[in-house]
Amino acid sequence: MLIMNAPGKQQTRLLDNIDSPDDLRRLGLDELTDLAREIRETIIQTVATTGGHLAPCLGVVELTLALHYVFNTPEDKLIWDVGHQAYAHKLITGRRERFHTLRQQHGISGFPKRSESEYDVVETGHSSTSISYGLGLATAKDLKKDRSKVIAVIGDGSMTAGLAFEGLNQAGHLDKDLIVILNDNEMSISPNVGAMSSFLSRKLTGKTMTRLKQHLEERLKSLSSVGENILAVLKKSEESLKGFFTPGMLFEALKFEYIGPIPGHELDALIETLENVREHGQGPILVHVLTTKGKGYKPAEEKPGNYHGVGPFDIATGKPKPSSGPISYTKVFGNTICRLAREDERITAITAAMPAGTGLAPFSEQFPDRFFDVGIAEQHAVTFAAGLAMEGLRPVVAVYSTFMQRALDQVIHDVCLPDLPVIFALDRGGVVGDDGPTHHGVFDLSFLRYIPNLTLMAPKDENELQHMLYSAVNSEGPMAIRYPRGSGEGVELDSEFKKIETGRGELLREGSDVLLLPIGNRVYPAMEAAEGLEKLGVSAAVINPRFVKPLDKDLISLWAEKTGHVVTIEDNVKKGGFGSAVLQLFSEIHLQVPTRILGYGNKFIEHAPQPVLWKNSGIDAPGIIKGALEVLQQTKK
Amino acid sequence: MLIMNAPGKQQTRLLDNIDSPDDLRRLGLDELTDLAREIRETIIQTVATTGGHLAPCLGVVELTLALHYVFNTPEDKLIWDVGHQAYAHKLITGRRERFHTLRQQHGISGFPKRSESEYDVVETGHSSTSISYGLGLATAKDLKKDRSKVIAVIGDGSMTAGLAFEGLNQAGHLDKDLIVILNDNEMSISPNVGAMSSFLSRKLTGKTMTRLKQHLEERLKSLSSVGENILAVLKKSEESLKGFFTPGMLFEALKFEYIGPIPGHELDALIETLENVREHGQGPILVHVLTTKGKGYKPAEEKPGNYHGVGPFDIATGKPKPSSGPISYTKVFGNTICRLAREDERITAITAAMPAGTGLAPFSEQFPDRFFDVGIAEQHAVTFAAGLAMEGLRPVVAVYSTFMQRALDQVIHDVCLPDLPVIFALDRGGVVGDDGPTHHGVFDLSFLRYIPNLTLMAPKDENELQHMLYSAVNSEGPMAIRYPRGSGEGVELDSEFKKIETGRGELLREGSDVLLLPIGNRVYPAMEAAEGLEKLGVSAAVINPRFVKPLDKDLISLWAEKTGHVVTIEDNVKKGGFGSAVLQLFSEIHLQVPTRILGYGNKFIEHAPQPVLWKNSGIDAPGIIKGALEVLQQTKK
Repeated sequence: MLIMNAPGKQQTRLLDNIDSPDDLRRLGLDELTDLAREIRETIIQTVATTGGHLAPCLGVVELTLALHYVFNTPEDKLIWDVGHQAYAHKLITGRRERFHTLRQQHGISGFPKRSESEYDVVETGHSSTSISYGLGLATAKDLKKDRSKVIAVIGDGSMTAGLAFEGLNQAGHLDKDLIVILNDNEMSISPNVGAMSSFLSRKLTGKTMTRLKQHLEERLKSLSSVGENILAVLKKSEESLKGFFTPGMLFEALKFEYIGPIPGHELDALIETLENVREHGQGPILVHVLTTKGKGYKPAEEKPGNYHGVGPFDIATGKPKPSSGPISYTKVFGNTICRLAREDERITAITAAMPAGTGLAPFSEQFPDRFFDVGIAEQHAVTFAAGLAMEGLRPVVAVYSTFMQRALDQVIHDVCLPDLPVIFALDRGGVVGDDGPTHHGVFDLSFLRYIPNLTLMAPKDENELQHMLYSAVNSEGPMAIRYPRGSGEGVELDSEFKKIETGRGELLREGSDVLLLPIGNRVYPAMEAAEGLEKLGVSAAVINPRFVKPLDKDLISLWAEKTGHVVTIEDNVKKGGFGSAVLQLFSEIHLQVPTRILGYGNKFIEHAPQPVLWKNSGIDAPGIIKGALEVLQQTKK
Repeated sequence: MLIMNAPGKQQTRLLDNIDSPDDLRRLGLDELTDLAREIRETIIQTVATTGGHLAPCLGVVELTLALHYVFNTPEDKLIWDVGHQAYAHKLITGRRERFHTLRQQHGISGFPKRSESEYDVVETGHSSTSISYGLGLATAKDLKKDRSKVIAVIGDGSMTAGLAFEGLNQAGHLDKDLIVILNDNEMSISPNVGAMSSFLSRKLTGKTMTRLKQHLEERLKSLSSVGENILAVLKKSEESLKGFFTPGMLFEALKFEYIGPIPGHELDALIETLENVREHGQGPILVHVLTTKGKGYKPAEEKPGNYHGVGPFDIATGKPKPSSGPISYTKVFGNTICRLAREDERITAITAAMPAGTGLAPFSEQFPDRFFDVGIAEQHAVTFAAGLAMEGLRPVVAVYSTFMQRALDQVIHDVCLPDLPVIFALDRGGVVGDDGPTHHGVFDLSFLRYIPNLTLMAPKDENELQHMLYSAVNSEGPMAIRYPRGSGEGVELDSEFKKIETGRGELLREGSDVLLLPIGNRVYPAMEAAEGLEKLGVSAAVINPRFVKPLDKDLISLWAEKTGHVVTIEDNVKKGGFGSAVLQLFSEIHLQVPTRILGYGNKFIEHAPQPVLWKNSGIDAPGIIKGALEVLQQTKK
């Protein structure tokens, strides 16, 4: 049995009577301890079926209980940074009975969501926003003379992001009542990196300690007659001084009151500390809590990185339920960059705390000197890559589309303005499914397409992905390759790389009535739609344009003219995306042709399986058929 | 005479013989001192004519000479963060004779520019990139076994940005040879804010010192028999300890070797320190240099904020040359927000280190409790504003369009996803003129237009700006108002505010042949063009759409159908911008009408006066006439 401390079957559970934190506040310490166990069990059993963020949620069960027990939520505002650790929070804030619908269509979200509960202060999903949000809330409350509390819970990994630092910096300056709980599990999603991290993990013993000792010794020698004794004392006190210096100093330097470290799975210690903070705390306070990611489920404790976000798994063995389906785009990217790097020493790879998620884990093992995990720091990842490129290297920045939003200025100003050969591998472009609106990568074609010097492409399948990556590292100037989450199309991978000429699309199917212009993962559905249209007596041409920028002007305009009707299809918002580019092309060449753009409308998209979202937005094969039939009915004016 | 230490007229100047840093390296210390004086004089005299970044450049004259003297530039890479302090650098790296063309059309740029000189390592203009760039260069050099040096010069203001922190954090971790020069003038563009700032200015004396003393006292008492004596010693040593603790500790905590502070206008001290660093430095090193912004020009030393970036001014008095022309958009914004805030307590204002530039200085004086300067931290500015908005306030984030690029993710994820009423006042939308490609705000319509829940508008003149701001603070949901740099149109300002209905444009002129659709500052040129077209026998209708999102669908489609030809005009790139939105509207409503989009093409735009750039891109009145005539010739297919 891999669930540690699992209780025997109980007739009634405490959890069954917790409808809100008020119910929690009536329990004694022993009961809270039992409740923590029940919550863990519920989370493990649910996530084993639904998938989700297991290890982070198991790590904060006691912390969640203690926070709601001590603070007067929802009057006091409790912000979960990133939000991937909020399952216990959801279970005790009125969502117990819907918890089995976690991440399911029409079910509860995997992240805090304001429309779900008054206990969810903000929508989250991206990291490191909680201090800034919290400072805003605390400042507004101060202006309104509202004395309720604001608590931001942030992981040590999230602290590596510049946004968190910017928030800390202003918080220390403004001196408002803000409680920051540093949830320190010595790793974020993957093992943590950066100087800050070793600072937190209490390894700061070197230079500062040495200098302090030397300094004290010299001062004492010169000032006192009892020199020798004092030196002996200092020596004894060294260990103690080490303890003194870390890890609070950095936060005190930023004018936070530092409290901790507190053992994060001991409810009594947590409650006592938090009660003290609630009663006596003033100004910005940082409470340092030590937790274990995956706590209470042995496989997750042992390999928390593997259990950060999981699909359905077998509880007894901890093994993922076998997923059928072709190799993922992510994996093809990871394999291809390794293959390319063997032949090309210029290739380096950069991730912002996502070595596994982006498929770079094999690269990190095979080319440790050329692999850089910069922490949750997309801005720096891009500018650092620009520096590498200036010296002739070919850096590949692998990042989820949604997190690329963090580094727009760096792409424009630091890479594209000086026209540097940085390659952006944008994973999870398009809807991502269960993670929902904070994680869908449906804006990237729009926020990248207008940037001068940047080439922007999207492969129709995993085989084209490998050729595009090969082509990108062998080109000049900045290049972005955008591909979807999940399985490829199951096509065979060519053993030889092919160079794809920049701006060159391919005609996949001739046709006389309508031109289908799908980009990226919409190519196969468009081919299917073309077959469906043929059965309806409509002859559809299909072009795989490959490039959003530059467009294959000649090929597209030729077949647009031949067919007289165009449908563009993209796994992106319609505004400013691929279809918009096609319309602009037609405007530039004075081509008047009825064109229908298929993609996402002007709304954030809820969580649901990818195929459901594609269907609902009419960008699957039946939707494309419908779009084609509609555009055919459109009379030219 | 306001130039301090100004020499008498010399027959020959040392500067006249400095063609490259090699020439510099032959000089003695006295000559270098004379050279510094000559450089200052040249900078003051030139900038008095051309305008430019005066105070920052005067602050680093000695530092610039010392760096080039000691390091082997251009082999050693010298990176100027932001780049607004590089005039001395330009003068001694082969651009002396062209220096009078500073910021003039076809003249040298006000910022480092790779195409100008091999001594300019990167294009800069946005702050806080130098550590990331430098770390990339140093890492690449390490991989290539290239032992040349990398030096990043960064101001204390730039250190408040998250990007700088992200760079420091990885630099401490990677342990590459990187020299960071902290140019500490205790202010960035305006007086510095944030906890970090007081840390640097050596005010950290409180909590940490007290705790250390208590700790030492307790330890010593318990461990030693000589307790009393030691306490006496400690007391004496207190002052010394204070000195020890700041300001290097923070950087040492991040694993940098800290050296300093060094007096930044003493060439001998600078050269000696830098030579030591060059010879013996290993790993990441931070050299803390204290400089005076505006050094050597009394008005600038006294009010460095006023002399950060200046237009032409009178050297003797320090006063700006009188500029004629109407009140600026910036000033109208600043006056309006003050007027609104008097009636509406919810209004708060946020700037990222630009209180003067954004026009918020009067607000900061009149409403100090509701004004927040967050430092150079656009990301935090936006998320902090989101927190304020959640508590019912109406935060207005005033930011230059180009710097908004830094906070795209925060706009999407932190403000628009939860649909919070944050108002973005985007100053300097469109080309900005002399500051050039790093500062043009020509992408904002494209990177904002696709974001769900966001309303995006642009006023035709300063009167409409005040009504839009009034309307925005009295609306729900996120709103962005984009307006240009410089003078308004000189129109009268209504004394009463008017509520502009969201998505409602205005017909300015009826016409039967062509519809002109200009956005924002292109409305008046379009009206002028309509008059010009009338003289050519062409009847042009003009609509001021006011909103890029949502578009006034009914009004625009009505007149597009009536006229049968459309020209859109925007001070923005064509791709994904306003014209692109119009094309998508026509596609959605199945309207086939020849449409010409006028705006900027697929290139970064060089520096030149705004009217020149408008003319060159065909978005001034003659360009609009030309566009209209061309679209009229286009035969419908």
